[in-house]
Amino acid sequence: MITFSEAITYIERATQGIRYPEQPPMLYEPMAYLLSLKGKKVRPALALLSCNLFREKVDDAIPIALAWEIFHNFTLMHDDVMDRADIRRGQPSVHKKWNENTAILSGDAMLILAYKYLAKSPVRHQRELLDLFSATAAEICEGQAYDMLFESRLDVKEEEYLHMIRLKTAVMLGAALKSGAITGGAPEKDKDLLYAFGLNLGIAFQIQDDMLDVYGDPSVFGKKIGGDILSNKKTYLLVNALNTKEESEKATLLRWLQAGGHPQEEKIAAITALYDRLLLKEKAHGKMEYYYRKAVRQLAQVNVPAGRKDVLLNLAQKLMNRNS
Amino acid sequence: MITFSEAITYIERATQGIRYPEQPPMLYEPMAYLLSLKGKKVRPALALLSCNLFREKVDDAIPIALAWEIFHNFTLMHDDVMDRADIRRGQPSVHKKWNENTAILSGDAMLILAYKYLAKSPVRHQRELLDLFSATAAEICEGQAYDMLFESRLDVKEEEYLHMIRLKTAVMLGAALKSGAITGGAPEKDKDLLYAFGLNLGIAFQIQDDMLDVYGDPSVFGKKIGGDILSNKKTYLLVNALNTKEESEKATLLRWLQAGGHPQEEKIAAITALYDRLLLKEKAHGKMEYYYRKAVRQLAQVNVPAGRKDVLLNLAQKLMNRNS
Repeated sequence: MITFSEAITYIERATQGIRYPEQPPMLYEPMAYLLSLKGKKVRPALALLSCNLFREKVDDAIPIALAWEIFHNFTLMHDDVMDRADIRRGQPSVHKKWNENTAILSGDAMLILAYKYLAKSPVRHQRELLDLFSATAAEICEGQAYDMLFESRLDVKEEEYLHMIRLKTAVMLGAALKSGAITGGAPEKDKDLLYAFGLNLGIAFQIQDDMLDVYGDPSVFGKKIGGDILSNKKTYLLVNALNTKEESEKATLLRWLQAGGHPQEEKIAAITALYDRLLLKEKAHGKMEYYYRKAVRQLAQVNVPAGRKDVLLNLAQKLMNRNS
Repeated sequence: MITFSEAITYIERATQGIRYPEQPPMLYEPMAYLLSLKGKKVRPALALLSCNLFREKVDDAIPIALAWEIFHNFTLMHDDVMDRADIRRGQPSVHKKWNENTAILSGDAMLILAYKYLAKSPVRHQRELLDLFSATAAEICEGQAYDMLFESRLDVKEEEYLHMIRLKTAVMLGAALKSGAITGGAPEKDKDLLYAFGLNLGIAFQIQDDMLDVYGDPSVFGKKIGGDILSNKKTYLLVNALNTKEESEKATLLRWLQAGGHPQEEKIAAITALYDRLLLKEKAHGKMEYYYRKAVRQLAQVNVPAGRKDVLLNLAQKLMNRNS
């Protein structure tokens, strides 16, 4: 059995082994740049660890694991253009370091590269992996579409928000785990359980991400605290605050969302205080726990000895206790 | 055997049969819009006709034919964003009718949709089709990259230009024909000959496209004559004009490329006259004929009765004699 850090080593070696054509550089340098930035590599690791539940050798899972990592980075490259996000993993995003056209086109080529890696999977799994990959990729685009549509809305319901993060973030974790199980030769039921484990873990993960933006420890949180607040980003906290029945709090919130000219710290402090008064940290924490426990129950049902599943359980715990 | 117009009917029926999810509309309406605009549908038709050389029933070629058509429209959606081209097939392009983010994201989802259709191909051909499709798609991105890089260069060589159009335009015709042959169960040699036929036909097609922009009949040419001249687009004609050894003509040309404030008609007339003096219409026509004849010779070698190939030969002739 392999450990999480061994899985990461496999992924890093495989990522470094990607041979990009030299020409034209505007197409391939941005891919190499983005993939070289320090990312968590959770998705490809999940694929390898899931495969490893069912067989010792994880080589067959490496192509699809790389496909997920490349695909994930493709979404970052295009999302950063669409969201006008100039920093990615502490470095200039591709459209800032190069330009928007380069980010669009290099991103397209990166999506195609993901399929090239998928196609290196064993032939016997190819159709199943291809269908899962394309279905998931389409859902992730839908999630990004909802996320953008929500920018101009003040009436997003909690349920709509949860549907959006399910599509944008959670399905990729579920599908990465399922794809690993496919290459490991798992039975249908276990594939579906691992998908559900990843899906619920992904929802918990995103709610926690929303919390870290407000309540994270500034000394360890990679980004500036309150970034989502400053950009009026629809997070689990903001969506719930907007749906409060306390009219005066809602009015205060709406004033802050439209306000300009205040010092940034003032807006962050005011909205954080409002979240505190509405007990939204507690609500978010409860929701996160709900999805996390659901995920753990699904993992528990996967039909392999409990000891084999510890690595995934520990990883899930680690993701839930992260500071950044 | 099916005729060209029967092939088009198959494609149109299949295109109309695409069922897009209803939600979110910003993702799926642009796809339906672009695919509904009147296009030539040459690429999917080539796939069906190529399959039909080797077997009567072309059903097995329909998924990959649709994949090419969807992929081609994806490239149009993204290229129009990158090229700031506001009109497509006489209608507003997607980023004008909606906005840039919508065109980026809907385009991404369209590329994924192309792979979904590819995956409906018979399993026995799937790996071969997947490899051909991804390799071709990556080359097309490379072609678009070169096309954009050439915008800021005045020293593009004829050879570089031909390499660019090979990647951007010609490989898709070759690959569409080859993919049809694959689903038709053709031997390797015939697959390669059909690829070469399409590749050379595609180069001839693009050189002709460049000529039509200048020398087309305004009453039948769909676009405004001289559009490429006004935008300083690197065409076969402009690249050759820039490489002229006649220094005074080159100086005249460079002045026009940098000039502003002149009436559009004046610039078009001046550059057309310069092309005429350098005999570039004749040169382009000769080059086009060269690639066209090469294409025809390769088709002639495909090992099926000559009568079966007439439909492709006629189509190639028609493409070379088009006015728009």
